[in-house]
Amino acid sequence: MSVVAAFLYHEGKRLRPVTLIDPACEHIAKDDFVWIGLSQPTETELADIAGNYGLHPLAVEDAGNGHQISKLDVYGDQLCIVARTAHLEGDHIAYGSTAIFLGKSFLITVRQGSARSHSELRAHLEITPELLREGPDYVLHAILDFIVDGYFPIVEAIEEDVLKMEQRMLAAFLTREEVTRIFTLRRELVRFQRVLGPMLEVGRKLVNLQLPRLDEASKPYFRDLLDHMLRVESAITGIRDILISVFEASHLLEQQRQGAITRQLAAWAAILAVPTAIAGIYGMNFENMPELKTQWGYFVILGVIAAVCIGLYIRFKRSHWL
Amino acid sequence: MSVVAAFLYHEGKRLRPVTLIDPACEHIAKDDFVWIGLSQPTETELADIAGNYGLHPLAVEDAGNGHQISKLDVYGDQLCIVARTAHLEGDHIAYGSTAIFLGKSFLITVRQGSARSHSELRAHLEITPELLREGPDYVLHAILDFIVDGYFPIVEAIEEDVLKMEQRMLAAFLTREEVTRIFTLRRELVRFQRVLGPMLEVGRKLVNLQLPRLDEASKPYFRDLLDHMLRVESAITGIRDILISVFEASHLLEQQRQGAITRQLAAWAAILAVPTAIAGIYGMNFENMPELKTQWGYFVILGVIAAVCIGLYIRFKRSHWL
Amino acid sequence: MSVVAAFLYHEGKRLRPVTLIDPACEHIAKDDFVWIGLSQPTETELADIAGNYGLHPLAVEDAGNGHQISKLDVYGDQLCIVARTAHLEGDHIAYGSTAIFLGKSFLITVRQGSARSHSELRAHLEITPELLREGPDYVLHAILDFIVDGYFPIVEAIEEDVLKMEQRMLAAFLTREEVTRIFTLRRELVRFQRVLGPMLEVGRKLVNLQLPRLDEASKPYFRDLLDHMLRVESAITGIRDILISVFEASHLLEQQRQGAITRQLAAWAAILAVPTAIAGIYGMNFENMPELKTQWGYFVILGVIAAVCIGLYIRFKRSHWL
Amino acid sequence: MSVVAAFLYHEGKRLRPVTLIDPACEHIAKDDFVWIGLSQPTETELADIAGNYGLHPLAVEDAGNGHQISKLDVYGDQLCIVARTAHLEGDHIAYGSTAIFLGKSFLITVRQGSARSHSELRAHLEITPELLREGPDYVLHAILDFIVDGYFPIVEAIEEDVLKMEQRMLAAFLTREEVTRIFTLRRELVRFQRVLGPMLEVGRKLVNLQLPRLDEASKPYFRDLLDHMLRVESAITGIRDILISVFEASHLLEQQRQGAITRQLAAWAAILAVPTAIAGIYGMNFENMPELKTQWGYFVILGVIAAVCIGLYIRFKRSHWL
Amino acid sequence: MSVVAAFLYHEGKRLRPVTLIDPACEHIAKDDFVWIGLSQPTETELADIAGNYGLHPLAVEDAGNGHQISKLDVYGDQLCIVARTAHLEGDHIAYGSTAIFLGKSFLITVRQGSARSHSELRAHLEITPELLREGPDYVLHAILDFIVDGYFPIVEAIEEDVLKMEQRMLAAFLTREEVTRIFTLRRELVRFQRVLGPMLEVGRKLVNLQLPRLDEASKPYFRDLLDHMLRVESAITGIRDILISVFEASHLLEQQRQGAITRQLAAWAAILAVPTAIAGIYGMNFENMPELKTQWGYFVILGVIAAVCIGLYIRFKRSHWL
Ligand SMILES: [Mg+2]
Ligand SMILES: [Mg+2]
Ligand SMILES: [Mg+2]
Ligand SMILES: [Mg+2]
Ligand SMILES: [Mg+2]
Ligand SMILES: [Mg+2]
Ligand SMILES: [Mg+2]
Ligand SMILES: [Mg+2]
Ligand SMILES: [Mg+2]
Ligand SMILES: [Mg+2]
Ligand SMILES: [Mg+2]
Ligand SMILES: [Mg+2]
Ligand SMILES: [Mg+2]
Ligand SMILES: [Mg+2]
Ligand SMILES: [Mg+2]
Ligand SMILES: [Mg+2]
Ligand SMILES: [Mg+2]
Ligand SMILES: [Mg+2]
Ligand SMILES: [Mg+2]
Ligand SMILES: [Mg+2]
Ligand SMILES: [Mg+2]
Ligand SMILES: [Mg+2]
Ligand SMILES: [Mg+2]
Ligand SMILES: [Mg+2]
Ligand SMILES: [Mg+2]
Ligand SMILES: [Mg+2]
Ligand SMILES: [Mg+2]
Ligand SMILES: [Mg+2]
Ligand SMILES: [Mg+2]
Ligand SMILES: [Mg+2]
Ligand SMILES: [Mg+2]
Repeated sequence: MSVVAAFLYHEGKRLRPVTLIDPACEHIAKDDFVWIGLSQPTETELADIAGNYGLHPLAVEDAGNGHQISKLDVYGDQLCIVARTAHLEGDHIAYGSTAIFLGKSFLITVRQGSARSHSELRAHLEITPELLREGPDYVLHAILDFIVDGYFPIVEAIEEDVLKMEQRMLAAFLTREEVTRIFTLRRELVRFQRVLGPMLEVGRKLVNLQLPRLDEASKPYFRDLLDHMLRVESAITGIRDILISVFEASHLLEQQRQGAITRQLAAWAAILAVPTAIAGIYGMNFENMPELKTQWGYFVILGVIAAVCIGLYIRFKRSHWL
Repeated sequence: MSVVAAFLYHEGKRLRPVTLIDPACEHIAKDDFVWIGLSQPTETELADIAGNYGLHPLAVEDAGNGHQISKLDVYGDQLCIVARTAHLEGDHIAYGSTAIFLGKSFLITVRQGSARSHSELRAHLEITPELLREGPDYVLHAILDFIVDGYFPIVEAIEEDVLKMEQRMLAAFLTREEVTRIFTLRRELVRFQRVLGPMLEVGRKLVNLQLPRLDEASKPYFRDLLDHMLRVESAITGIRDILISVFEASHLLEQQRQGAITRQLAAWAAILAVPTAIAGIYGMNFENMPELKTQWGYFVILGVIAAVCIGLYIRFKRSHWL
Repeated sequence: MSVVAAFLYHEGKRLRPVTLIDPACEHIAKDDFVWIGLSQPTETELADIAGNYGLHPLAVEDAGNGHQISKLDVYGDQLCIVARTAHLEGDHIAYGSTAIFLGKSFLITVRQGSARSHSELRAHLEITPELLREGPDYVLHAILDFIVDGYFPIVEAIEEDVLKMEQRMLAAFLTREEVTRIFTLRRELVRFQRVLGPMLEVGRKLVNLQLPRLDEASKPYFRDLLDHMLRVESAITGIRDILISVFEASHLLEQQRQGAITRQLAAWAAILAVPTAIAGIYGMNFENMPELKTQWGYFVILGVIAAVCIGLYIRFKRSHWL
Repeated sequence: MSVVAAFLYHEGKRLRPVTLIDPACEHIAKDDFVWIGLSQPTETELADIAGNYGLHPLAVEDAGNGHQISKLDVYGDQLCIVARTAHLEGDHIAYGSTAIFLGKSFLITVRQGSARSHSELRAHLEITPELLREGPDYVLHAILDFIVDGYFPIVEAIEEDVLKMEQRMLAAFLTREEVTRIFTLRRELVRFQRVLGPMLEVGRKLVNLQLPRLDEASKPYFRDLLDHMLRVESAITGIRDILISVFEASHLLEQQRQGAITRQLAAWAAILAVPTAIAGIYGMNFENMPELKTQWGYFVILGVIAAVCIGLYIRFKRSHWL
Repeated sequence: MSVVAAFLYHEGKRLRPVTLIDPACEHIAKDDFVWIGLSQPTETELADIAGNYGLHPLAVEDAGNGHQISKLDVYGDQLCIVARTAHLEGDHIAYGSTAIFLGKSFLITVRQGSARSHSELRAHLEITPELLREGPDYVLHAILDFIVDGYFPIVEAIEEDVLKMEQRMLAAFLTREEVTRIFTLRRELVRFQRVLGPMLEVGRKLVNLQLPRLDEASKPYFRDLLDHMLRVESAITGIRDILISVFEASHLLEQQRQGAITRQLAAWAAILAVPTAIAGIYGMNFENMPELKTQWGYFVILGVIAAVCIGLYIRFKRSHWL
């Protein structure tokens, strides 16, 4: 599945399909534009489209690489943006990348390992021609917005997991499995944050720099996009803070628990050592041990043992060792 | 409760009420202005007012979102500011947002989930027309100042809690409940600090940038506003530093306590093991154990046991293990 | 005690006293200037002087607030600087603030909760008219220098305390009281550092910005002032580093000590458990225990016990457990 | 092995060999250039080439130093770049440095302690004259790209090691050898990151500054180079985050394990102390101990001991101490 | 020892000695210059030279202060640089300062508490007149280079110490003395880093700012100087990283060791508690204990005890507790 869709748009409406090597873009009317969507294209397809639309070889190389970090490059009067996409695969976050080429009258997207197709987005834009009429820079915004919208459910899923861990930590002591899970979550978060960093850089460039192919009227849309990215970043930082809290609290609570158990152990050891020590003395085999011959010696000693044990118990209870 | 108040002001005095779709703002005199206050408006109301005053759709979207982070956007010659509001709900901080649109002759506020109405502020300004005469940029300052003033009682409440925890930590050892409470406080603080960050950004823009709709004469007021925000931030950083101190001190004190108890446990175990070991020897049943037959053997052994135990006790006392 | 001193200066010499509402400053010669010193003035006094010298209401508000953080504000052609003062009150640092208004031909200081009066400084300047002749910007420098000089004894007192703690930590183990004291010191330091931050900001503005009322010739003096502030900051950072070292070293040393004691405890427990276990066996009451009837059984067993105990002792000694 | 290769290039093709003191570069055609490769040259060779090509003495000094950190210096209309090279030597990373001089019509490289020769790279460029025709700035890019490409296998080798450690940490407890290995890895990483920092600085200068001898057309290539460096840096940061995770998790897991063992120890100590204490009592030698004479006393006591031990066992089992 | 050397230089060669109050500098030829070296001068000498060469009082004050942090100040067309010097005094680093005044035709150095005299440097420059002919800015570079060169042996000495500590940590457990030594080293390093910070600032100003008295031709020399400073800083950061590693590894290894010992202790306690408990039971004095009367009871019990103990031993051995 290589060419997903390729059409020429006129006044916000789909006019006709185009091919990759269609010399269309040179003869089309001002404000008309071609929007081509590729997914994991072959090297040949990439070379065809690069030749036809005059794409820079280095930009094409980036488009062919599924692990390219997000970036925005200007080549003459063309713009090449690579955006990292993200989606959940079971417990962990999988990443892809989407390269977007924006030229005089074309917009080309190249998706690599990205799970969410742009078909729905294209359909949505085609039924609102007043938006599509804004030109390819509006489509650029729509695609980036689509990618960033894909970050939110991921953040929410992780947040839910983390809050659950926090609840468990406050209610009980963490098991080895839970500690492991928290570390896995933290790694996913740290990695996501590192993926987000260059995306924010791209967003800031779109807002602050004077770039070719972007109308002044599109600036508010890119500001809005940056705002969404910042919201994702703020959420992630929030979750990381909770994770750090969970760890530190867990460390302190475990330390307290260890202390409490040591005190309990010490208290019971002391209580049980008393009868052993005293009884040991009266278990000696000396011939002349006057107490042994008394009528009530045994009962007195039993009483002494009980008294000392109970006394110790009360004292430990009072000092909260027991 | 949607439209809270909507009036036209002339020379600092309330002239007459206006409606959302009143085409008033086009025919009013220079220096006159409309001040409209909305609270959780419906989508229709937002659309009406956006149409009548020419508000940008993206700004209107932000105004409709109660979780928007603080921001300042320029749309042509209009200014749109979103400020996060905060109030205490029981033990934790609840957040809302207030969007403020500032145009040629109007100021519109849209509150979402914010607990404190602007009615009192409006009344206060209406009785001091010399201030209101400064125009909508002065009102903008007054509203932002009102929002920032709302941060102070929150900070003070948390500070009181934290200082109480610090006192308890220095006086005794923290309970599990107290550790948990400290972590909750820290989370609230970290979150508040994250809310405050973008607000400071807005304040800095109001002070440093050349913005439409703001007279030079209003700059000192925004500088003062920024100063108040910085005071809140400084207070929060101070509280966080105390919290960090409480944790680290608690960690070290607990570690010391654990050490002290281990030493005590070791000392008593040694003292009690002595009679057990010695008595064990004289509890053996060998036929030829000369000491057992002596007249004073028992008493000598009792003395030896007492002497060793007391000797150990003194030694442990001297080395501060007991 | 509100108006501390108020005089008109001509060519570096005191000419005559002035009152707060003296319309003097409008008729005085070029290069003449008024220097007024207030301490905790009443609201009326502040209003009088603000009216007479055209001070901005927001600046006057700051001057009336004893907890204002340091700042430098330009109001038209006037300069308003707030500087935090500090002095030791017993064990902790007390803070005040001094607002300084610098106008065309006046310098006004408003002290709030600041312990050190400017009288001595004024006297010192009055006997060196060649300095005072430099004008009010030189006086501004002198006052700020005076305030910053007040920081040094505080830093030195704390440094002494901290170095004492470090000595104790290296020589022995910290007591609970010492840990508590260190935390108090650290809090004072962190707070001082937060007070110093905005002061440095003020210093940097005086050095780097083109500000009204400051001659080019005064720049080296403000650079020197900034330099002194940086020296205070460098000293504080140094002390904090020592404090952090003390904590971490204390943590590690306590952990080592705990380990050493655990090993000692284990060693003695093992040594004492041996006679208990062996003697326990020969304390059993079986009728057929041949060893019990031998002539030297008891002595052999005593020897065995002694041998095992001494053997263990030597082994533990060798592995440095004892 | 000093002069590795030295040729004059014309229209992207090798024309003829040159010597170090060949006065060639003054008479060659525009767009022709000399490419000289030296490896650990003698002082004389460096002096010769410096004299012939007008290299600055400080730049030559840097080229002679194998421990020079990466840098980019402009000397008049010449460019001198030093890049650190890296290769694996067994378990650890070995570093070298390559100095590159770029002048009007020459490119000179001086390798010091760098393991990978440029011969293959030169051969590759010579068979694609359309690239070599771009001039010495293209060759500069190719060499730097070659050096940065050499970083990737190192990062991958370390990443593999670290992931293995992470697996082991999650599956079991780390041995002393593993802890040591992790620290060695971390040191290597931290050092590599410190080597990378100045390289990134060089990359940023090549992209952002207006530098002599670099055509505008070469900018995309240096942007691509910077991008590769950033990818290396991102990978290293990722590995460091994992290492930090491994440490913290290991700390927490070890703490939990310690707690679990303490609880187990306490439980068994309690269970075994019961028969010792009870039996001790009935081992006393009082003459009047009525229980001793009963028919079933012994069996009752055995039952009591068993009951208490089993009861304790169940209770400890339930509270997860055992 | 106050005036170390004071000469007039002409075309790079020493012409004649000068005095501090020699009105020489006004009448000397263009490109001639005076180089005066002072060490711990008296206040009078400083005043003399300040008067004769028009030095700013604030700069002179800095020159008289041995604890001045590094700085670069411009006074009109004069340059005043203070550089911190460092040398080893036994185990710790001692600091001094050298102030350098650079004017139209003079260079004056004032050393305070700095151990290394400039005599050798002056001699070296005087025999290479082609360097000295570059003028006083070249001499400024040479002196700063000399000071920075003095940092390297210090860094190397500390590095050696730290690497030794690392070896010991990996080979065994740290003693209290070693922990203390590491903390001392760390403090020295942190302090050195704080001394280095302002020096780097000076270096960056010399490279980046347009400063009076410095020819364009001297820029590469100051770049080279900055480069050397950065190398020192990089080395220090490297050593600090190792120190941090040593601490953290030591913490983790000690924690592991503590765990291992606790497990060993628990295992032996369990093994020894078995004979005690069993023998205790057969040491009871019940009249009806059938086992006691059997022929082989004693030996059976001895066997049971041995079996349980050996069983436990094997089990503990297998689970690596022993
Ligand atoms: Mg963090
Ligand atoms: Mg954080
Ligand atoms: Mg934190
Ligand atoms: Mg954090
Ligand atoms: Mg952290
Ligand atoms: Mg920790
Ligand atoms: Mg810890
Ligand atoms: Mg802090
Ligand atoms: Mg801190
Ligand atoms: Mg903090
Ligand atoms: Mg902090
Ligand atoms: Mg921290
Ligand atoms: Mg610090
Ligand atoms: Mg520090
Ligand atoms: Mg540190
Ligand atoms: Mg620090
Ligand atoms: Mg800290
Ligand atoms: Mg640290
Ligand atoms: Mg810290
Ligand atoms: Mg720790
Ligand atoms: Mg890190
Ligand atoms: Mg990290
Ligand atoms: Mg982290
Ligand atoms: Mg990190
Ligand atoms: Mg860290
Ligand atoms: Mg550090
Ligand atoms: Mg570091
Ligand atoms: Mg680190
Ligand atoms: Mg570090
Ligand atoms: Mg730590
Ligand atoms: Mg710990």
